[in-house]
Amino acid sequence: MAERLIVIGGDVGGMAAASQARRRRNDLDIVALERGGWTSYAACGIPYLVAGDVESIDELVVRSPQEFRSRLRIDVRLRHEAVGLDLAARRVSVRDHVHERDLTLGFDQLVIGTGARPLRPDLPGIDNGFVHGVQTLDDAEDLLRHAREARSTEVAVVGGGYIGLEMAEAFVRWGANVTLVEGGDNVMRTLDPDMAALVEDALRRHGVTVRTGAAVKAFEPGRVVLEQGEVAADLVVLGLGVTPNSGLAGEAGIELGARGAIKVDRRQRTSAEGVWAAGDCCESFHRVSQRAVHVALGTVANRQGRVAGINIGGGYAVFGGVVGTAVTKVCDTEVARTGLSEAEAAAAGFELVSARIESSTRAGYFPGAGPITVKVLAEKGSGRLLGGQIVGGQGAGKRIDVLATALTAGFTLDEVVDLDLAYAPPVSPVWDPVVIAAREAAKLV
Amino acid sequence: MAERLIVIGGDVGGMAAASQARRRRNDLDIVALERGGWTSYAACGIPYLVAGDVESIDELVVRSPQEFRSRLRIDVRLRHEAVGLDLAARRVSVRDHVHERDLTLGFDQLVIGTGARPLRPDLPGIDNGFVHGVQTLDDAEDLLRHAREARSTEVAVVGGGYIGLEMAEAFVRWGANVTLVEGGDNVMRTLDPDMAALVEDALRRHGVTVRTGAAVKAFEPGRVVLEQGEVAADLVVLGLGVTPNSGLAGEAGIELGARGAIKVDRRQRTSAEGVWAAGDCCESFHRVSQRAVHVALGTVANRQGRVAGINIGGGYAVFGGVVGTAVTKVCDTEVARTGLSEAEAAAAGFELVSARIESSTRAGYFPGAGPITVKVLAEKGSGRLLGGQIVGGQGAGKRIDVLATALTAGFTLDEVVDLDLAYAPPVSPVWDPVVIAAREAAKLV
Repeated sequence: MAERLIVIGGDVGGMAAASQARRRRNDLDIVALERGGWTSYAACGIPYLVAGDVESIDELVVRSPQEFRSRLRIDVRLRHEAVGLDLAARRVSVRDHVHERDLTLGFDQLVIGTGARPLRPDLPGIDNGFVHGVQTLDDAEDLLRHAREARSTEVAVVGGGYIGLEMAEAFVRWGANVTLVEGGDNVMRTLDPDMAALVEDALRRHGVTVRTGAAVKAFEPGRVVLEQGEVAADLVVLGLGVTPNSGLAGEAGIELGARGAIKVDRRQRTSAEGVWAAGDCCESFHRVSQRAVHVALGTVANRQGRVAGINIGGGYAVFGGVVGTAVTKVCDTEVARTGLSEAEAAAAGFELVSARIESSTRAGYFPGAGPITVKVLAEKGSGRLLGGQIVGGQGAGKRIDVLATALTAGFTLDEVVDLDLAYAPPVSPVWDPVVIAAREAAKLV
Repeated sequence: MAERLIVIGGDVGGMAAASQARRRRNDLDIVALERGGWTSYAACGIPYLVAGDVESIDELVVRSPQEFRSRLRIDVRLRHEAVGLDLAARRVSVRDHVHERDLTLGFDQLVIGTGARPLRPDLPGIDNGFVHGVQTLDDAEDLLRHAREARSTEVAVVGGGYIGLEMAEAFVRWGANVTLVEGGDNVMRTLDPDMAALVEDALRRHGVTVRTGAAVKAFEPGRVVLEQGEVAADLVVLGLGVTPNSGLAGEAGIELGARGAIKVDRRQRTSAEGVWAAGDCCESFHRVSQRAVHVALGTVANRQGRVAGINIGGGYAVFGGVVGTAVTKVCDTEVARTGLSEAEAAAAGFELVSARIESSTRAGYFPGAGPITVKVLAEKGSGRLLGGQIVGGQGAGKRIDVLATALTAGFTLDEVVDLDLAYAPPVSPVWDPVVIAAREAAKLV
C-alpha cells in the first residue's frame, strides 16, 4: 500500500505542503481534509470583495479542489472536519458533514494546517447574526449576504488592526457610516503610537469615525454598547485578531508553544514523529527578537507550507523565520511595518534610538509625489537596525521590504545608509526616504 | 587665516561635500567654483521638464547659490571655471567668465566634483546647433529653446540608454515623431537582451520608432544619416553615455582609474594629499564584481559627496560602493536593474544560473494589477545572488531595492526566497515576484 499523507486544513499552509510533497513524491497517497467549502484561498482579499474591488468570491480561490485533484492528484474532501487525532494508532477521526457520517483515516505522515480563528470575546450578544468574523470565504459569504439583505448603513468595526482597518475602508466604499471601535489607545497597535496617529488621521479623512479607548460591553440589535456610550450598528465586523487553532494537536499531545500555537522546528516538524505543521496554527521564529512568536499571515503560511512539503518530499528546506513584516492600505494611505516596535524592542531588552522623517514617494517636483513618513528604530550603541514603520501614499508601503531585507542581514544603520538603492524622479527622491530615516537615526547612536 | 576648502563643481557631488564639511567645521572658509549658471540641481529631472511633468527649470534646483551662501556660508561663484591646478603650490587657476578675467585661489583642502560630460562622437555635423546633449541645466535651456522655436516635430534620440529612453518618452509626450537610434543590437545594454526586448516593446507601444544596430554617419539639417538609410530629424538629442571630466585632475598628476575616472579610496581621497573627489568624475567600488567602475548617477554622487564632506569635517565615513542599481520609466513601463548582467558576470569570471518569471505587481485579482517580469542571476554551485532585472508596470521598478539590499548582504537565492517581505493584495501577490524569480533560479543551482 502506498504511504499516505493526510493534510488537515485545505487552506494555504496545508495545501502548499501537499503540493510540494506531490511534486517530489509521485507515489504518495495524499488526502486533504477541509471542514469548509473552499481550498487555498486568499482570505486577505475578503475586504476588497466587500469594497467591490473584487467582483466575485471565486476570484479569491487560488486553486480549486478540482485543480488539486486533477493536476496534483490530491484527494481533497470538503466539509470534512478532523475531530480527533490518535498519534499512537496514526489515525484521524473525521466528521463528514456532507453525508453526516463519521470515518477514520490512517496516515503515515500528517500535516496540520488548521489555521487560526478570530477572537470572539465572551460578551452579551456576540452570537447574534449581525456580528461577523471575516476569516474564511464562508464568513465572507455570510457577511455579504447579510449586508446586502439588510442594506446595512450603520457598520461598526470592532478592532483597529489590519483586518479592522481594511473592513472599515471596505464599508466606507460600500457607502455605510462606519465607526471603528478600538479598545486600546491607538489603532494599529503593531505600530508605535506616533505612527498609528497618522493612520487614524487617514481613517478620519476618509470618513471613518474612530473611537479609541472604547471597551465593548454588549452587542444589541441596532447598536454596540460601550463602557461609555454606544455606537449605532446594524452590522458588526470583528477584527480583534486571531488565536491559533491548535486544539486538535494539543489534545493529541503535540507540544504547543508561543501563544498556544503548535511548536515547530526549522523544518516545520512538530514534537510528534512524522507530524508537520504550517500556517496560522503554528509558531514562527522571529529573527530580530530571537523568540518564538505567533504570526498569522498568508505569506508566512505559504513559506512554511512549502518548507514542510519539500521536507516531506525528501528534500531539505528550512524556514528561517519572520522579521515581523506587514503592510496594508487604508484608502489612499499605505501602512507598513517590520522588525520590532518600540514596545516590542523594550520587551526584548533593547535600548533604542529612533528617528521619524517626512519625505515624498517621488522626487518632490514630480507629479503624483505623495507624502511618506518613515520611522526607523535601532539599538543604541551598536546601531543595529531593529525595525521600521512607514505611512504614506501610493508606493510607500513596499519600501518596508528594504528594511525587512536589511533586518534579515543584521545590518546597522550605517549599512542601510550605504545601500545602493534605485533612484529616478518618477519613483523616488534622490535619497530614498528609508535611507533618510536611517541617516537621522544614525546621528543618535 | 582660516583654512580654505575649495570645491570645483557646484553640482551634487561637490556641494554635498561642501555642505557636510560646513556642518562639522564652522571655521572653514569654503569657496565653490561652478563654470555653469546653476548649483546642486537634479539633472535626472531634465527629461521630465521636456515632457511637461515639471513646469519650470527652477523646480530642478535643489539648493540655489543664494541658499548655499546664506544658510551654509559657502562662497559660490557661478560662471567661474577652474582651468588649472597646481598641487605643489596648492593653487587653482580660475577663469571668471562673468568679468572676463583670470584669477588664482589658494586652498588647503580641495574637492573635485567636476562631473562627467556626454560623449559626442567625432562625426560630421555633430557641432550643429540642432544636436543637443542633456547633461546640465544650461543644456536643458538650450534644448527647450530650440525645440520651442523650431516647433520640432521630428526628433531623433541617439543612444538607447537611460537618458535616451527618457528623452524619447519626453518628446513623444511633447507631440513629436520620435526615432530612437541605437548602435548596438538592443536598447538598454545594461540589461540582458531578453529583458531589453521588453523595453523595446514598450517604446514601440508608445509610438517610438526603434532602430537598433544603426550606426550614425553624419548629422545634417533635417536628418540623421545612418550607415544604412536615414532618419528625419529637425532636432537630435544625444544619449550616448558620459565620460568623466577628469582632465584637470589628470593634468595635475592625480591618479586616474576605471575608465579615466579619478581614483579614490574608501574615504573619497584621491592620490594627492588633502584632495578629495566625489560624483561623476570619480570611480566607485563595485561590491559584486569587486572591481573599480565608473557610475555616473546622482545617488552615488550624493553618497560620495556626503562621505568626503564628513571626512573633511573631521568625521569618519566610508563609501562602501555600488551594486549597480538603476531604475527608469518609459511611459507606463518601469525598468530596473542591479548587480551584474549576464555579460558583466561572465566578464568577471562567474558561471551563471538565471530564471525569468512573469507575475503581477498586485494580487492578480486586484484592480490595477500590472505585469511584471523579473530576472534573477546567481552563481552556479554557490547559489550566490549576482544580479536582477525588472521590467513592469507601476510599482515594479523599486522592487529592485530588495535585490540590491540582498546583493549588499551577499545573500544566496535560498536566503532571498526566505525573506519576510510585505504582502497585501493592493501592493503585491502573496509570493513577491522577486522571490518567485529567486525560487525558480534556485532550482537550477
